[in-house]
Amino acid sequence: MRPSRRAPDELRPVSLERGVVKYAEGSCMVKFGDTHVLVTATLEERLPPWLKGQGRGWVTAEYGMLPRATLERTRREASAGKQGGRTVEIQRLIGRSLRAAVDLEALGERQITVDCDVIQADGGTRTASITGAWVALADCINWMKTRNMLKANVLRDNVAAISCGIYQGTPVLDLDYAEDSEADTDANFVMTGDGRIIEVQGTAEKTPFSEGEFLALMALARKGVARLVDLQKIAVA
Amino acid sequence: MRPSRRAPDELRPVSLERGVVKYAEGSCMVKFGDTHVLVTATLEERLPPWLKGQGRGWVTAEYGMLPRATLERTRREASAGKQGGRTVEIQRLIGRSLRAAVDLEALGERQITVDCDVIQADGGTRTASITGAWVALADCINWMKTRNMLKANVLRDNVAAISCGIYQGTPVLDLDYAEDSEADTDANFVMTGDGRIIEVQGTAEKTPFSEGEFLALMALARKGVARLVDLQKIAVA
Amino acid sequence: MRPSRRAPDELRPVSLERGVVKYAEGSCMVKFGDTHVLVTATLEERLPPWLKGQGRGWVTAEYGMLPRATLERTRREASAGKQGGRTVEIQRLIGRSLRAAVDLEALGERQITVDCDVIQADGGTRTASITGAWVALADCINWMKTRNMLKANVLRDNVAAISCGIYQGTPVLDLDYAEDSEADTDANFVMTGDGRIIEVQGTAEKTPFSEGEFLALMALARKGVARLVDLQKIAVA
Amino acid sequence: MRPSRRAPDELRPVSLERGVVKYAEGSCMVKFGDTHVLVTATLEERLPPWLKGQGRGWVTAEYGMLPRATLERTRREASAGKQGGRTVEIQRLIGRSLRAAVDLEALGERQITVDCDVIQADGGTRTASITGAWVALADCINWMKTRNMLKANVLRDNVAAISCGIYQGTPVLDLDYAEDSEADTDANFVMTGDGRIIEVQGTAEKTPFSEGEFLALMALARKGVARLVDLQKIAVA
Amino acid sequence: MRPSRRAPDELRPVSLERGVVKYAEGSCMVKFGDTHVLVTATLEERLPPWLKGQGRGWVTAEYGMLPRATLERTRREASAGKQGGRTVEIQRLIGRSLRAAVDLEALGERQITVDCDVIQADGGTRTASITGAWVALADCINWMKTRNMLKANVLRDNVAAISCGIYQGTPVLDLDYAEDSEADTDANFVMTGDGRIIEVQGTAEKTPFSEGEFLALMALARKGVARLVDLQKIAVA
Amino acid sequence: MRPSRRAPDELRPVSLERGVVKYAEGSCMVKFGDTHVLVTATLEERLPPWLKGQGRGWVTAEYGMLPRATLERTRREASAGKQGGRTVEIQRLIGRSLRAAVDLEALGERQITVDCDVIQADGGTRTASITGAWVALADCINWMKTRNMLKANVLRDNVAAISCGIYQGTPVLDLDYAEDSEADTDANFVMTGDGRIIEVQGTAEKTPFSEGEFLALMALARKGVARLVDLQKIAVA
Repeated sequence: MRPSRRAPDELRPVSLERGVVKYAEGSCMVKFGDTHVLVTATLEERLPPWLKGQGRGWVTAEYGMLPRATLERTRREASAGKQGGRTVEIQRLIGRSLRAAVDLEALGERQITVDCDVIQADGGTRTASITGAWVALADCINWMKTRNMLKANVLRDNVAAISCGIYQGTPVLDLDYAEDSEADTDANFVMTGDGRIIEVQGTAEKTPFSEGEFLALMALARKGVARLVDLQKIAVA
Repeated sequence: MRPSRRAPDELRPVSLERGVVKYAEGSCMVKFGDTHVLVTATLEERLPPWLKGQGRGWVTAEYGMLPRATLERTRREASAGKQGGRTVEIQRLIGRSLRAAVDLEALGERQITVDCDVIQADGGTRTASITGAWVALADCINWMKTRNMLKANVLRDNVAAISCGIYQGTPVLDLDYAEDSEADTDANFVMTGDGRIIEVQGTAEKTPFSEGEFLALMALARKGVARLVDLQKIAVA
Repeated sequence: MRPSRRAPDELRPVSLERGVVKYAEGSCMVKFGDTHVLVTATLEERLPPWLKGQGRGWVTAEYGMLPRATLERTRREASAGKQGGRTVEIQRLIGRSLRAAVDLEALGERQITVDCDVIQADGGTRTASITGAWVALADCINWMKTRNMLKANVLRDNVAAISCGIYQGTPVLDLDYAEDSEADTDANFVMTGDGRIIEVQGTAEKTPFSEGEFLALMALARKGVARLVDLQKIAVA
Repeated sequence: MRPSRRAPDELRPVSLERGVVKYAEGSCMVKFGDTHVLVTATLEERLPPWLKGQGRGWVTAEYGMLPRATLERTRREASAGKQGGRTVEIQRLIGRSLRAAVDLEALGERQITVDCDVIQADGGTRTASITGAWVALADCINWMKTRNMLKANVLRDNVAAISCGIYQGTPVLDLDYAEDSEADTDANFVMTGDGRIIEVQGTAEKTPFSEGEFLALMALARKGVARLVDLQKIAVA
Repeated sequence: MRPSRRAPDELRPVSLERGVVKYAEGSCMVKFGDTHVLVTATLEERLPPWLKGQGRGWVTAEYGMLPRATLERTRREASAGKQGGRTVEIQRLIGRSLRAAVDLEALGERQITVDCDVIQADGGTRTASITGAWVALADCINWMKTRNMLKANVLRDNVAAISCGIYQGTPVLDLDYAEDSEADTDANFVMTGDGRIIEVQGTAEKTPFSEGEFLALMALARKGVARLVDLQKIAVA
Repeated sequence: MRPSRRAPDELRPVSLERGVVKYAEGSCMVKFGDTHVLVTATLEERLPPWLKGQGRGWVTAEYGMLPRATLERTRREASAGKQGGRTVEIQRLIGRSLRAAVDLEALGERQITVDCDVIQADGGTRTASITGAWVALADCINWMKTRNMLKANVLRDNVAAISCGIYQGTPVLDLDYAEDSEADTDANFVMTGDGRIIEVQGTAEKTPFSEGEFLALMALARKGVARLVDLQKIAVA
């Protein structure tokens, strides 16, 4: 029995609310249960120096947590003077995941920066971030389309992400914090709308896992991502 | 005529929503028009080293802005590696303002940290932060009271803040960004529920101002703060 | 009775010595009693990037304290790796105060940097800095005039600053450290030669203050600034 | 045809040389072809503060590259003032991977720090680091055993790692730089001596991959890790 | 002919003014011609962690330059966020030089920090700093003696320093900036009152030098230091 | 008797192995006994901004130690976030020493960066670094010659360095760590192939030394450097 009484293959209630801040070209408040992330997409007509003059654009991401998004207050990274290793890992993952679905040549020499700021954290902040980021990114690209800034299709497919893990011997979908802190194995899957894999990260927190266990997690993830992609489609419709 | 068509002594619509995040001992989403700040109050049973063993507590504040709270994206301070001068100034002001209404001896050897994170900025983020911070602080102190952690009254009075300025020759209350970027003179007033002054900061952006002009701003501020204190009382009732 | 036996409206002995270092375009050793600040003004034919090509110049300030300017040694900020919040606040105040008296268009596309380094601190370092900075700035502008670098008048008026506070119930002028560390209320006033206000900052250290108290402080400040402006005029004559 | 003319399931020549520096409790120069990493294991009788008094030890890792380990010189991180995101990601992976094979209670309240410094980089520095780190760690634990510092077995199993990828449509084992920079998909597998998985990281560099492709990579990895574990056993025999 | 018209073995006018700031236990304004350094010595009843409990004290030094001590303004190190390499080199030299003349056991478990802040720089700031630092240190130790804090003699000998160089083929003493920027060879000598050497640093700026040239510089330095030690003795008498 | 049983004027076994990494334009593994330093020379067609357009090149150096190069593990500077004072001192010394033997005009508008990374430290890391750096630099310049990138001779002479010290009253050559930590006096000499001096640094660790003692050290150094230069000539032949 999961602490939340969910079935093993049951997502938390998911919501994707668009247009939540007034300045950003795209934005989304994504909620996976009690995990709430505010995502914005910013379009800028400039590129990082190493990318200039190559006829293509860039999508990058930054991630942060409000200090009291967590049970205990976490030190503010701006005050600590640097981003922690976990933050760096997550924002690199988000950026890579989004770029896998974007035609950077079609974007042109521009940069879209996706900011994912966790308002409240109850496990799965990185998967919620990616799932919501796709919505903000889609809105940003629509914003460009309505201004005739794009000639070709930029967004090739949906991108969504979900975590899975082995909790008390059972593979379960979409771990919340209570499960995540107990799970033997924890994996994050980023997948496209057509069911292919963009990124897989599986970690044995305590005991190494078998290939069979891993495949069970992947099957759950595929199911969860399909549901998230449906919700994305409804949101941007 | 003000860009927002408000009367010179008219506040923007103000809302103070409590309990907006689930972990913090106190929290408040404060809105002054399109300026939205999420404030949390965190209680910790520890003190900064220089304050230990003196039989009294501490209230401090940190301030931040989400990168796309602003019209143009602002660089994330955690990524830049340090808090800017403006951030430092504002968070010191918030901390001082709150401490002026708190009996630190009655609080005991504990620290309350108030985090003010700007979700959307349209002028007056520091005054909205202070006004909302008082609500989050009050809730945090109530949280302690219900757990019998306090013997005496900690919160001596309400604290609220408002900006005033001279816009196109007229003293006006509660400047939004359109006014603030044009105003000749800009002043922030932090006041208590009984109408006394905690902090005054007035700056001549372009031309120095006279004592008469300054007094006109202070009169407006007194009116605005009285209204904000009423709203705080309703919010925490 | 004030610790220094001064009358409530009596400044400490003030001196403004010009030309104290050999390389700077303008310099001033300013002393308010035992508070000694060495100010230099540096002219550079370059601008911060965000100001280029707008046909006007810039005046900025930096502030520092020698480690043993204080009773106890203060950690060297260069060694700590960053400027503290108080330093940042003060140098921003000095810069704003000077700019309010300068015609930036008339200055042309150049930057004047005013460095205020506290040799010895006995309260009022920011007000002494501003008062001395005006003298160094005036000398720097004279240096430019004698080289025919300016077509119009750059310096519109004198700028001087003084602190006031309520010490043991009495409003007093120009607090020294003994008074400042005891005062209930502490305010700094930056004013022009013609008696207008550039910046006001009033803070209730312990108990909030009334409008009447604040006006009493402002009246004292006006008197003090008038005296400082006289001394500036004598100094640059 | 692979640039190195290797068969798809062929590792580069691997060597694991122990005892390469004189002070460390364990050390290993690991070479995967032209990728050379010097690994040391340091035993210290102290723990990070958050782990004190819990009756168990810790294994952590740090990673670095000499500036000219790469084709073009890379900026020295000590001079840049911070470790880059890639460095942080890799050293966290190495630490997690090793901890999965260590009985931290049996280790006692001590810390082993594994330093992986890349002398020359030709792809696969993280997998070579993990594989060599296990050897240095094993030697460090042997060093403790010969001094009767351990009561129980600390090292539960071997740990080795290898990369796989899809190069020009074919799944291949142990990518060198020429392949890695061209590969569509890149995955790293960390596995134990008994064939279970500690960590999986798969990334679609260009086009998302299917589950079938991923399973092909995992099969290759299993084969490669088995070979590496054999070489580790020979090395420490 | 030297730019200053001095004889090859002639020092610039030297002055050593004691007691120039009111809080420090020892202080000295040292002038070597137009090079002016303010030195303070601070006594603290604490030690760096690595020295605690060893029954001896420590003497350390920090060095800084006011931004406009130089012909062109130098960036403030506190603002740049770190001390430059030259600063670090010089402050380590000053610390080592002073410690060579101090009986650290006799000092007891205390630290004396010597701060050398360059008010105006015209070459030789490190040698002026050391020479003045000895005076401030001697005053600090006297301050302790008059409070019966010391049982034995702490200061074993005088310490002074001077630069020499080969300017247009001629060995000269005490280089000013005009000479220093032209000199082929530049050497700094730190010596004791009895003529022994504490530190020698000689650098060929352009062409390597011979042993004979170096000995000529050392002979000049011996003469210069003897004169400086005489002036120190007069200053502290 | 020296701990290593060497004669007073006897170097440790020295080796200079070229071409030890595959990417660098020049490289050398230099060993002075148990002190091992990996040196690489990198050629880049760019210059520091302050040197652009002056028709000459630059040679600079960076120095680092692997964390477990030392008996106790040293904190990684990249992780600490800055290079320590000792590191900065040493890398400046290496850069100056090499530049003294290079014709920067003949080099052209290019930069050669020499990286010295200490693999194992047993005293004399800076002298081994300089001696090995000359070999790497020579190879880098040869690399340029074989590509017809140079019109004139760039390298004017050999550069080598050695330490000397007074150990238990006797002047000895090439101190190892056991001697260095005990020595009364420690000096480093950087000399050219023709016996002239580039840099001398002598420090009295405990008691000041006499001119006679210093000359004895310099005589030893001359002998040691001559031997090192012979070995360099054999290495690059």
